[in-house]
Amino acid sequence: MEQRDSRIAPPALGVGMVGYAFMGAAHSQGWRTVGHVFDLPLRPVLAAIAGRDAHAVRAAADKHGWAAAETDWRALIARDDVQLVDICTPGDSHAEIAIAALEAGKHVLCEKPLANSVAEAEAMVAAAEAARSRGQLAMVGFNYRRVPALTFARRLIGDGRLGTLRHVRVSYLQDWLVDPDFPLTWRLQREHAGSGALGDLGAHIVDLAQYLTGEVLVGVSAQLETFVKERPRLDGASSGLTASGGARRGPVTVDDAAVFTGRFSSGALATFEATRMATGRKNGLRLEINGEFGSLAFDLERLNELSFHDHREPAATAGFRRIVVTEPEHPYLEGWWPPGHGLGYEHTFVHQARDLVEAIASGTDPMPSFADGLQVQRVLAAVEESAEKNSVYTPVQAVEAEVR
Amino acid sequence: MEQRDSRIAPPALGVGMVGYAFMGAAHSQGWRTVGHVFDLPLRPVLAAIAGRDAHAVRAAADKHGWAAAETDWRALIARDDVQLVDICTPGDSHAEIAIAALEAGKHVLCEKPLANSVAEAEAMVAAAEAARSRGQLAMVGFNYRRVPALTFARRLIGDGRLGTLRHVRVSYLQDWLVDPDFPLTWRLQREHAGSGALGDLGAHIVDLAQYLTGEVLVGVSAQLETFVKERPRLDGASSGLTASGGARRGPVTVDDAAVFTGRFSSGALATFEATRMATGRKNGLRLEINGEFGSLAFDLERLNELSFHDHREPAATAGFRRIVVTEPEHPYLEGWWPPGHGLGYEHTFVHQARDLVEAIASGTDPMPSFADGLQVQRVLAAVEESAEKNSVYTPVQAVEAEVR
Amino acid sequence: MEQRDSRIAPPALGVGMVGYAFMGAAHSQGWRTVGHVFDLPLRPVLAAIAGRDAHAVRAAADKHGWAAAETDWRALIARDDVQLVDICTPGDSHAEIAIAALEAGKHVLCEKPLANSVAEAEAMVAAAEAARSRGQLAMVGFNYRRVPALTFARRLIGDGRLGTLRHVRVSYLQDWLVDPDFPLTWRLQREHAGSGALGDLGAHIVDLAQYLTGEVLVGVSAQLETFVKERPRLDGASSGLTASGGARRGPVTVDDAAVFTGRFSSGALATFEATRMATGRKNGLRLEINGEFGSLAFDLERLNELSFHDHREPAATAGFRRIVVTEPEHPYLEGWWPPGHGLGYEHTFVHQARDLVEAIASGTDPMPSFADGLQVQRVLAAVEESAEKNSVYTPVQAVEAEVR
Amino acid sequence: MEQRDSRIAPPALGVGMVGYAFMGAAHSQGWRTVGHVFDLPLRPVLAAIAGRDAHAVRAAADKHGWAAAETDWRALIARDDVQLVDICTPGDSHAEIAIAALEAGKHVLCEKPLANSVAEAEAMVAAAEAARSRGQLAMVGFNYRRVPALTFARRLIGDGRLGTLRHVRVSYLQDWLVDPDFPLTWRLQREHAGSGALGDLGAHIVDLAQYLTGEVLVGVSAQLETFVKERPRLDGASSGLTASGGARRGPVTVDDAAVFTGRFSSGALATFEATRMATGRKNGLRLEINGEFGSLAFDLERLNELSFHDHREPAATAGFRRIVVTEPEHPYLEGWWPPGHGLGYEHTFVHQARDLVEAIASGTDPMPSFADGLQVQRVLAAVEESAEKNSVYTPVQAVEAEVR
Repeated sequence: MEQRDSRIAPPALGVGMVGYAFMGAAHSQGWRTVGHVFDLPLRPVLAAIAGRDAHAVRAAADKHGWAAAETDWRALIARDDVQLVDICTPGDSHAEIAIAALEAGKHVLCEKPLANSVAEAEAMVAAAEAARSRGQLAMVGFNYRRVPALTFARRLIGDGRLGTLRHVRVSYLQDWLVDPDFPLTWRLQREHAGSGALGDLGAHIVDLAQYLTGEVLVGVSAQLETFVKERPRLDGASSGLTASGGARRGPVTVDDAAVFTGRFSSGALATFEATRMATGRKNGLRLEINGEFGSLAFDLERLNELSFHDHREPAATAGFRRIVVTEPEHPYLEGWWPPGHGLGYEHTFVHQARDLVEAIASGTDPMPSFADGLQVQRVLAAVEESAEKNSVYTPVQAVEAEVR
Repeated sequence: MEQRDSRIAPPALGVGMVGYAFMGAAHSQGWRTVGHVFDLPLRPVLAAIAGRDAHAVRAAADKHGWAAAETDWRALIARDDVQLVDICTPGDSHAEIAIAALEAGKHVLCEKPLANSVAEAEAMVAAAEAARSRGQLAMVGFNYRRVPALTFARRLIGDGRLGTLRHVRVSYLQDWLVDPDFPLTWRLQREHAGSGALGDLGAHIVDLAQYLTGEVLVGVSAQLETFVKERPRLDGASSGLTASGGARRGPVTVDDAAVFTGRFSSGALATFEATRMATGRKNGLRLEINGEFGSLAFDLERLNELSFHDHREPAATAGFRRIVVTEPEHPYLEGWWPPGHGLGYEHTFVHQARDLVEAIASGTDPMPSFADGLQVQRVLAAVEESAEKNSVYTPVQAVEAEVR
Repeated sequence: MEQRDSRIAPPALGVGMVGYAFMGAAHSQGWRTVGHVFDLPLRPVLAAIAGRDAHAVRAAADKHGWAAAETDWRALIARDDVQLVDICTPGDSHAEIAIAALEAGKHVLCEKPLANSVAEAEAMVAAAEAARSRGQLAMVGFNYRRVPALTFARRLIGDGRLGTLRHVRVSYLQDWLVDPDFPLTWRLQREHAGSGALGDLGAHIVDLAQYLTGEVLVGVSAQLETFVKERPRLDGASSGLTASGGARRGPVTVDDAAVFTGRFSSGALATFEATRMATGRKNGLRLEINGEFGSLAFDLERLNELSFHDHREPAATAGFRRIVVTEPEHPYLEGWWPPGHGLGYEHTFVHQARDLVEAIASGTDPMPSFADGLQVQRVLAAVEESAEKNSVYTPVQAVEAEVR
Repeated sequence: MEQRDSRIAPPALGVGMVGYAFMGAAHSQGWRTVGHVFDLPLRPVLAAIAGRDAHAVRAAADKHGWAAAETDWRALIARDDVQLVDICTPGDSHAEIAIAALEAGKHVLCEKPLANSVAEAEAMVAAAEAARSRGQLAMVGFNYRRVPALTFARRLIGDGRLGTLRHVRVSYLQDWLVDPDFPLTWRLQREHAGSGALGDLGAHIVDLAQYLTGEVLVGVSAQLETFVKERPRLDGASSGLTASGGARRGPVTVDDAAVFTGRFSSGALATFEATRMATGRKNGLRLEINGEFGSLAFDLERLNELSFHDHREPAATAGFRRIVVTEPEHPYLEGWWPPGHGLGYEHTFVHQARDLVEAIASGTDPMPSFADGLQVQRVLAAVEESAEKNSVYTPVQAVEAEVR
């Protein structure tokens, strides 16, 4: 029987995660899997997770494969076996935890949206820049950048296959709030979630649009709406996306839907829509980008496919081609299955983990950076400002750091 | 050999058409075909067409099956064998011809958009109302209302299958202006076309959205853009959608693209996009409507299909169903082919002709009325006003007549 | 007012049609429309139709735009104003009428399948060859060859874009016989229809497969099935695809479904399926052809689209592209609408009429010829023979004339 | 800091895996993940893997997360810490390993196809039956039964939603052998793989069709083809689906493609096609089943979707609905993500692991059983026999055990 040759095992990278609900489960799957799929320079170790309820956090640690459990995130940050803090809590605690972790000398991965306000996001960027000088890295978890079809789409656009961009239209449609008796979870409370569909879904599509185009949004004109203004109060803990409520109702203080138009730095026109009230659409992140040389289209409900139209082909044989993005040449696919054997939602977290581990090992800046997260936050703030000001076109203040 | 029994032939309805380019060809196909597919109370006779060039109009009459040709539309209106004037000219002449025809005692069918300005459209509505008291009818040619899938979609919404509406998203994407050397035809000149993608494509989708929902848009927030600001001047006649230009360039005075958000009377949020610069999209009129009980989706490039999601079904078997709208139960289908034998673009003009002939025979008001056309015009005017005023939300003045 | 310049009108081509049910209506639409869409060297005149019932045929003539009506097809053939006989009757009368018309010196267009037996088809080919020496033409009405997407598919294959073919899979799925109470119309009686799904739908797909590939089927292995063995007898006239039956039941003497595999002359493997029992498929003629250099796919329910995969492209951007076959470069499209404005089922009959008129004017052989029809008939006969002989592989006797 | 409460941890189930190529990687992902997603009665422990090359197997163990490595599968079977043997080797070694493992008192999971011949499969069934009396379980790895959309499809059929079945059409299309220079790996050699597309892809679709319908195939009529008859010999080890070859060529001794028709026990007609030469199709397992009350359709390249047509709905609103199979009500979904967050290929192995672990814990027979695998083997044998006998319809000998 052969014994493991520990001399060639890569060094460990201890990960500590705060929060263990939907995002915590997804990140755990990423951390558990990444080292078995990709050859990594560091070996992620699921060191510890933190949560307030001792029993629940211990059960979560067991279920998701974490060695230890802490009831105070400050204790988790303080652990010697944790070099990277992965923040999966609601947005109202991101800034405090991230800044503390950076100040404690840890690398940080923070779920999106970066923060609930521009001010918080600015403080986090400042903390990240300070930590950067000490060799620490900070990344925000816009996981959809790691859908291979979308990573590949950015490459096509970056290679000039679309030419000058004219139109960007993106919608993110869900329907889990259609039922007026869905209860008042933390995602529907402004003090915890910051905003509703805007911060949850809109943050994704603003980031994606900027990522894919390599441009920033320079201004927006917006409308927000809360269709169901009161919902049953939760008696007890909220579980995020699924929960049941009691008889008393309380006010929904975030938006159910956000629609806005915008302008990219190149002059391209954009339309955005984020909603939790699009009956029948479960996770319908659909986007289309039209440039003078071609177009791209994508639907997250068919995440292994990318549609690409090359307008410079002869008209008689031109058309949107359905690329099944599972070839070895496609991003992230070298570690997975043969062509046509598709990936799923959670793979984005595996890819995110890979990129962050490689960045830490090489000391290069991971993307999306906290500055990228701040840029998104400023767009969301401009959306809210425009909506409050009768939809008037509202400029977005540029973040000085390069958006990548 | 049997002889035709003329005693049972329905009475003739003489049609005179002004203009014979793209729309003229399509309307001709409608008038020639309708009596052979549907049992009509009146028999349309293609009496005469009018155009300025004697040779060209004579050739067009021969090609499209019209008995006579006139070089002056006033002469066409004056003909005793013309009871219905069908206006297929550019928008800048609609008001003058339509009002003259109504004053001459004729029924009128006028292509969309109804006019190039709200003032013109208001004058046309007034003329139509005056003529109505004399028994004359007036209708505007929003032919997409007669795509069977869309007529059926309105019926589903009218029957309450979607419940309260939350979202309306409509885009009308074409790409025939992507080439910067496409010449400066009349459609690109404000004095002839009124506006660009807005009036051409935007008029269609605004009308459709109001028709399908049974609601009016109460306000909009808009951006317009002309991406290619100069194009080769035409030396000689423009042929509308296809033409070639010369070496000198002139200014494009209409929009290439229009994007706007809006609100329907029920509070539903809307996004609209009309463009001639969406590479790869040929006639991509796509719409989706989400209500609390269900959703509908449609793409004009697949015009025989309607997608319908019934949200009140059990979740495990719910989903967007692809209805092939070719059953005998579907609107207009009783006259056509067995299920699955699809229709094309031009059939909308056959259906339009049928509905107008039946309205004339029965003396009932056809829809869409000139008032409906005015309502669309007011939305387009509000879009232009909002775009000029930094996208600020701009109310749409309601037309008193009921939109149907 | 301009008068028609009769000096430049093309000479007339008198058409006489036998039968006026579904196919008669479709052919009528073709003859009425073709001269208004394409510039033709001859002007089709809808001279006369024939049917047994005097009242019904007169009504059909009026409805479909034919000048005269005859109650005996022999009288129709004898008319001086008829130069082309268009046969739209059930298959059991094709041979008799076609041979008589050819012997009477007329051109002939005969609906598919060419005949109900190989012997009849052979006699028809002999008659057509004899007539050919007198300058008369004969064509069989496989209208789907004139779907622009399929005409274009043949061009791509002929240009070598697929290389050596490996697989041909074609299914033609309908569902109008699912209801066991659908009555026993002529299409379900062997003496009238020859066979069931095999002759009706199978004939189409066999012809299409041979047309697209430019190859013939050299052998088949088949199974046939009649799922519903008795159906209500019709009391009175059958109307083909839709009818209602009485209380007494009679035996269904044709197949409900046919499945067979086969070999093309190049060695490509084929699978065919024709059925009227595929619940939910209305007119689902779907085909896919795989060659070493690429593949094509098509679905008649989306007849304006062709899917094409070019396997010689880089793998990362290769994929099935959806070609919207409405460009001016595409077959037949020059006469129709701008890109994206799709055609329907009946346009195939307009195209068929155009090609036949042009062939008659130029004296060139139209395709598909009666020999092509015989080739299909021999495949169908081999299918029936194989099905009777325990599915054993059964060679198809080649027709000497070139299949085109 | 909380400590793990070992009192509540479920007992361990030691897994030993033989083979570590494509299937080994996929199974490893299943074993590593299953306990973190589902609440299991036993805790799978990745105890050891076996392979011939000491260095390679040690590296594979490290990469895929197995504790120990063995160079002899007999040593693996003999380990005390292995209670379940998971066989991921080529088909020529399945029988020997499986029988030895069963005789050694282990549970067995064997990759499909169960064996390379009916005789081997029969011996395996006998061994499994003998072991069953000792409480050991045996299962064959037809993983596609665990695609949630397909598990759900079986449920719908079992619930009678399709009524009596009429048609089953299934194709499994890949294209990795299109290049004639793809080398002669073990999958192309009869002595190792048993057959080509037939055993690899055809086994999947035969099993799936029987699983979904709950019926067995009673007879088949078949053609097999090897399009590329010689390929470059491999110098050194084959890596399965991807490899590069040398200059010398050797004979391909398996089929590139198999097409066959068949009959199910209820009389439903079936068509099957399995090929590695369908250019552009990467993993195109597409199936459609038509019954008198409805139809189902599925495409593995969109594995989170199931199309369902309910024919008993009103015709005007009936149509194939696209069910996104990600609801909590759907099979296996309770452990995964919110609706619309799709799964991938590898999840089938997680589900397979779950079902087997639960069967072992409860002592109930897992499915598919070795008898199910034998039933598939007999169909494949009948296919080969029919192909050798001029495609004559060849009965399939029924396995006495119930196919489930």
